Amino acid sequence: MADQKIGVWLIGAWGGVSTTVAVGLNALARGLAGETALVTALPQLAKIEPIPWDRFVLGGHEIRATSYADEAGKLHRESRVFAPELLDAIGPALMECDARIRPGTLINVGRTIEALASPEAKKASRGETAVAAIERLSGDLQAFRTQNDLSNVIVVNLASTEPPPDEKVRDVDWPNLSKLLNSDGRTPVSASTLYAIAAMLAECPYINFTPSAGSNLPALEELALQQGVLHAGRDGKTGETLMKAVLAPMFAARNLHVMSWVGHNIFGNMDGKVLDDPVNKASKVRSKDQLLTDILGYKPQTLVTIEFIESMGDWKTAWDHIHFQGFLGTPMAMQFTWQGCDSLLAAPLVLDLVRLTEREWRRGKSGVMRHLASFFKSPMGADIPPEFGRQYELLLAWANEVAGKTPGAAGGSSAAV
Amino acid sequence: MADQKIGVWLIGAWGGVSTTVAVGLNALARGLAGETALVTALPQLAKIEPIPWDRFVLGGHEIRATSYADEAGKLHRESRVFAPELLDAIGPALMECDARIRPGTLINVGRTIEALASPEAKKASRGETAVAAIERLSGDLQAFRTQNDLSNVIVVNLASTEPPPDEKVRDVDWPNLSKLLNSDGRTPVSASTLYAIAAMLAECPYINFTPSAGSNLPALEELALQQGVLHAGRDGKTGETLMKAVLAPMFAARNLHVMSWVGHNIFGNMDGKVLDDPVNKASKVRSKDQLLTDILGYKPQTLVTIEFIESMGDWKTAWDHIHFQGFLGTPMAMQFTWQGCDSLLAAPLVLDLVRLTEREWRRGKSGVMRHLASFFKSPMGADIPPEFGRQYELLLAWANEVAGKTPGAAGGSSAAV
Amino acid sequence: MADQKIGVWLIGAWGGVSTTVAVGLNALARGLAGETALVTALPQLAKIEPIPWDRFVLGGHEIRATSYADEAGKLHRESRVFAPELLDAIGPALMECDARIRPGTLINVGRTIEALASPEAKKASRGETAVAAIERLSGDLQAFRTQNDLSNVIVVNLASTEPPPDEKVRDVDWPNLSKLLNSDGRTPVSASTLYAIAAMLAECPYINFTPSAGSNLPALEELALQQGVLHAGRDGKTGETLMKAVLAPMFAARNLHVMSWVGHNIFGNMDGKVLDDPVNKASKVRSKDQLLTDILGYKPQTLVTIEFIESMGDWKTAWDHIHFQGFLGTPMAMQFTWQGCDSLLAAPLVLDLVRLTEREWRRGKSGVMRHLASFFKSPMGADIPPEFGRQYELLLAWANEVAGKTPGAAGGSSAAV
Amino acid sequence: MADQKIGVWLIGAWGGVSTTVAVGLNALARGLAGETALVTALPQLAKIEPIPWDRFVLGGHEIRATSYADEAGKLHRESRVFAPELLDAIGPALMECDARIRPGTLINVGRTIEALASPEAKKASRGETAVAAIERLSGDLQAFRTQNDLSNVIVVNLASTEPPPDEKVRDVDWPNLSKLLNSDGRTPVSASTLYAIAAMLAECPYINFTPSAGSNLPALEELALQQGVLHAGRDGKTGETLMKAVLAPMFAARNLHVMSWVGHNIFGNMDGKVLDDPVNKASKVRSKDQLLTDILGYKPQTLVTIEFIESMGDWKTAWDHIHFQGFLGTPMAMQFTWQGCDSLLAAPLVLDLVRLTEREWRRGKSGVMRHLASFFKSPMGADIPPEFGRQYELLLAWANEVAGKTPGAAGGSSAAV
Repeated sequence: MADQKIGVWLIGAWGGVSTTVAVGLNALARGLAGETALVTALPQLAKIEPIPWDRFVLGGHEIRATSYADEAGKLHRESRVFAPELLDAIGPALMECDARIRPGTLINVGRTIEALASPEAKKASRGETAVAAIERLSGDLQAFRTQNDLSNVIVVNLASTEPPPDEKVRDVDWPNLSKLLNSDGRTPVSASTLYAIAAMLAECPYINFTPSAGSNLPALEELALQQGVLHAGRDGKTGETLMKAVLAPMFAARNLHVMSWVGHNIFGNMDGKVLDDPVNKASKVRSKDQLLTDILGYKPQTLVTIEFIESMGDWKTAWDHIHFQGFLGTPMAMQFTWQGCDSLLAAPLVLDLVRLTEREWRRGKSGVMRHLASFFKSPMGADIPPEFGRQYELLLAWANEVAGKTPGAAGGSSAAV
Repeated sequence: MADQKIGVWLIGAWGGVSTTVAVGLNALARGLAGETALVTALPQLAKIEPIPWDRFVLGGHEIRATSYADEAGKLHRESRVFAPELLDAIGPALMECDARIRPGTLINVGRTIEALASPEAKKASRGETAVAAIERLSGDLQAFRTQNDLSNVIVVNLASTEPPPDEKVRDVDWPNLSKLLNSDGRTPVSASTLYAIAAMLAECPYINFTPSAGSNLPALEELALQQGVLHAGRDGKTGETLMKAVLAPMFAARNLHVMSWVGHNIFGNMDGKVLDDPVNKASKVRSKDQLLTDILGYKPQTLVTIEFIESMGDWKTAWDHIHFQGFLGTPMAMQFTWQGCDSLLAAPLVLDLVRLTEREWRRGKSGVMRHLASFFKSPMGADIPPEFGRQYELLLAWANEVAGKTPGAAGGSSAAV
Repeated sequence: MADQKIGVWLIGAWGGVSTTVAVGLNALARGLAGETALVTALPQLAKIEPIPWDRFVLGGHEIRATSYADEAGKLHRESRVFAPELLDAIGPALMECDARIRPGTLINVGRTIEALASPEAKKASRGETAVAAIERLSGDLQAFRTQNDLSNVIVVNLASTEPPPDEKVRDVDWPNLSKLLNSDGRTPVSASTLYAIAAMLAECPYINFTPSAGSNLPALEELALQQGVLHAGRDGKTGETLMKAVLAPMFAARNLHVMSWVGHNIFGNMDGKVLDDPVNKASKVRSKDQLLTDILGYKPQTLVTIEFIESMGDWKTAWDHIHFQGFLGTPMAMQFTWQGCDSLLAAPLVLDLVRLTEREWRRGKSGVMRHLASFFKSPMGADIPPEFGRQYELLLAWANEVAGKTPGAAGGSSAAV
Repeated sequence: MADQKIGVWLIGAWGGVSTTVAVGLNALARGLAGETALVTALPQLAKIEPIPWDRFVLGGHEIRATSYADEAGKLHRESRVFAPELLDAIGPALMECDARIRPGTLINVGRTIEALASPEAKKASRGETAVAAIERLSGDLQAFRTQNDLSNVIVVNLASTEPPPDEKVRDVDWPNLSKLLNSDGRTPVSASTLYAIAAMLAECPYINFTPSAGSNLPALEELALQQGVLHAGRDGKTGETLMKAVLAPMFAARNLHVMSWVGHNIFGNMDGKVLDDPVNKASKVRSKDQLLTDILGYKPQTLVTIEFIESMGDWKTAWDHIHFQGFLGTPMAMQFTWQGCDSLLAAPLVLDLVRLTEREWRRGKSGVMRHLASFFKSPMGADIPPEFGRQYELLLAWANEVAGKTPGAAGGSSAAV
């Protein structure tokens, strides 16, 4: 992989997480930031020889009009993150990234997101059919690869949460979905899936860091295998749900009966504003709630709220109250508060996912990467344990396999791991 | 094992945990209590065919003068645990247990515990040498076995925490320790070790649920193998430390840098009063603090306090503040409070340990039971991972082994698992 | 007042708060309970010479079928309150109280409450017009007074929260309201107001401990003065709102800018189940939210949720997150959790209100008792400061007045204090 | 007061609070900061016509060698406070302040503080007697006044907490203390008192914002009246103790019996490091603990810890657990966490105290200013209520007096308010 360069293409490229990815990647490439919070920097992962930070080139799709400098400045002012000296040092590099951001699509993003669109994005999307959109987006990826002399481009969905698509689309296979997209009728999938199709048609791996559908449809899994591309998702596991995946196994292992688990989340970033629209929130809450039943083996009473509180900025505070029954029916309680900065929790995971995907691509694999389950709230792939600890063991086992074996002559399916 | 009966012998037999063990065991044997909080009642453990609850007979050593009715009544009044109807129903059974409690030894228990001794315990201990004490305690165990027609007696140390013994005793082997105990000089081990020796000489398995030294000395490990008995310990993992063993692995796995971890514990039971003596507290705090370094691979600033707050009764409230650094050095925080009833958290683990020890004894094993690591703050045995999740996997693996294999013809060492 | 007896008439007489009032009153009268949590037992209030606890006789209206023994037993089992010995000791007294409970009215109580009604209550209400209901309820009060030889009867509304009445009824004066009640049309006021009218017509003081409208209508204030009766309300200030009234003045006094105040309340009693109906919840949330603006002088972003979590029983846990700006715009946070038992917090305030009302009646006053503001979330009366501290000073000032002055020859308006 | 200028002289001039005072004052004077957190900016205080922010000149004594730019930069880096643009804008002004900082005294500051001393401070203090030190310090104040053409200089003690002085010095009057200071023996008072004497001899008001003794000795009160100077203290009420003074009155007013009140404080600034020395901590803990007994009228079990946790920087997190008994002896709990930035909480109070002292001096008063009680943990002055609300009423009453009356012809004692 001597001097190969790899593209990172962000959907929702000027959002909070993306901006932090851009700041972080440029800082890491110049040795201006430490590797804290990066899983791929752990000694246990050194054996996979992850690609160095300075080999990445960043671009993306976005529907708003802004810039990395503006968004990073806003995060600094409102949420007290990013040292100003760092932003000064990488300012020119961020401007170069800005120049590689292309207008995204507005098809099926939902009303709240549509309201944020720039004139440029509106113009690009105007009158565009789904097929035309896919072609345009796919073309952007190919142009990015060619112009920057990239070995491959890894696409990551970081756009705001969309309303869930019609459940019926799960019954449609790729040839039929392909036809539906070509027809004049209403596009049956949401924007995140159009991006995923565009990525796969351009032979780019696709990672879905959001609760939107993305590649999580039978038709898309079919397409991924047909095109020989890797994909993974859904919904980065950064805060309260991570805590659930860590704590609930203890209650299960000790046979402590969880009677109720209440979680209240407050935060004030763009993501919060979009989730204030109940249509968009539906995807999110569903993703957060199933986990407990999977781990505990029964359904306790649960309550999850996500509320937009403007003063919080990018800081998400979760309060969870776990009411459980101990021996002889004695009720006890655990409470926790989690005070984390959303973008700073998510961005390093995105960087890890890109590096881990690059490594899997390098050894010639395709399909769903189930060993990345520990990064997602609703991990894709078969037979995935819901406990965080067990999901993390999947990653370590994969690292051992990568380190121990030379990739098979003809490659193989990542899903087989 | 058709109609075999097994003895459970509690050191510190009228303490809060022991009282809860007595109440719980009698309730379970009569079907008056559910199995919540019992690990051995989990479906995953059914395959080991744990011994039924009604096969146990309870006895013990104690240095205070009281009764199960009094202690259970006190717990009910001060801490609002135990339904009065339950206590009524098992009252006669508890009185039978009272009749099987024998005076313990006062050698090297420390001043605070000594001050609690009954006239009977003082009389029994007066002028007694270590060897005489061991003989007396061992004789109590043998008499208990004979009189109740028991297949075996499992000894569990639940006495208040003692001051740690002189470090030099770690360099003494069993033959030499045996000689020292026989001489006129100061007894070089603490009471918990004398009980452990008495148990082993009587061929009884010994479990140390406290931070006291117990069988955790090279000389005792030697004796255990020589006598062919099982043992395990130390210090039941019930509350704040359990949480550390569950949460710290997540910080490690995500490469989030823990800068400081502060834990404040308040509670108001007898254990708390004894720990108010700094000599006794030393054993406890040491046991609680090492864990983080083992899991994280570096030492964050830590602070652990344990304070006696009388109004809390048996309810232990822990507040932990975890200050960690995320990506780009961003400081974040997690806090939790844990509100659990100490005796009700500990007692089911004691019952589990007794059942699991019985099972291991049934298949003819001896030595340290390292597969019980998930139950202890400072687990004995070689190569034990500090993470709770991994320790729990040791238990599940053992269960698979037990279920899958008939025990070897000549038995074997439990430590080899 | 030598041997005078006073009636306490509870609307919602078998609810959790009422049951606790009944248990408490009977325990206090027999010297079986201490006076903790009773404001009228404070040394500062001794000067008003409150009426002794053994002078009260308890009765009430209720629409469900149950008994004090059943309800107290349920509270004991589900929420671990009330010593069983206490319940045994006052069992016969509680049965005497049961015999004095009469069926209430179902007019305009809302669907959720209606669904709880007993056959007896349905029968009593069937086909009854508002005027007939008032006559029946008023008759019950008069019969209670006569049969028990009572100097007066103080009526307290403790029924579940009703939907708010049509705002237009605020524009109707008593003569017109009286006519509307006599007509065939839909009754324009809710049940709590019918009870208030019944009380006033029977010349009984009326206290509204709930957020329901009760006597808080211009027409009712008119009626109270016409009949010369005392009244007070609304909505007992027991938990989270009490904390707001105590904490917000500090933020105001220190000019710390509250940016957001989020409060999440979870609990599992009947009150919680009724509030799960959004129609009923509206009254409650409104009552909890206005306060901050009144104290701070500006409106921070606020969020109040009240959620029914069954496992909590009568224990209400509130988590509040207060995000404020300090000097140079620095964001800071205060969080609190409040873990209180709802009925046990409310009942002593009810007993205090009864005693304080008796004292004011004894000195010949009528009208709204604004000096009772510290007991209510939405206190009735003119010029009431929103700060808890200042409201409490109103009570102390009233006590001084009561102690210092003999009541005026012809009585006077309580509202003038 | 047309164009008068007033000096603000800080003892411990380059500490965290002083640095924030310097930054804040310079920002306010230039209109670069808002007045949030300033009590004297409240509408209720407008009537006293506080002196504008641009009339102050800042100087001080310090024993370390550093600068405002360095200290402000450190606060920015470690604790994420102060906008870098603000620091840039007032950089030159801060350098002018640096030039007015003079070496303090090292007499009786305790070992921990001594270890921080600069060569310059050591040189100035070398071989200096108490009287010589007082003369030097007093001379610095007079020179500051003359050189900057100041109407008056207000001295504020912000130095690290000293060990408490010998209790016997409380029995010494000013003439005798004066003699003792002149003798060769050990100086019987600590540094803060020497500064107070120096201030009073230079006819400067003295405010003690720390728990050190300062002017809180009978001899000093005598000296203040003799010199006609104002003084006030002790120990700024900024965080956990403020919360106690706000919350405890509610428990008292509601007759809820506080069984225990546990408070754990963690923070990582210089003040924390100094308090890690148990000798210095003694003053602090005493100051924090008495309050509850004063407010409640009985002594609950209390526990206060203050621990240095380096990662916290200037952010102080307090966790308080209040265990109280409600009606019928039901135990309940309130917990709070307070996350505030120490210097940013303290500095605005210092600015308020300076303004309020200037106003009182302007109307010709002298002696202890008891109306400033709400600012202090251990307020000086007679008959001061312990409740925060009542202390705040003292301030409002004083403001009314100031606004309503022209100052008396011959001035008067501030203590008489």
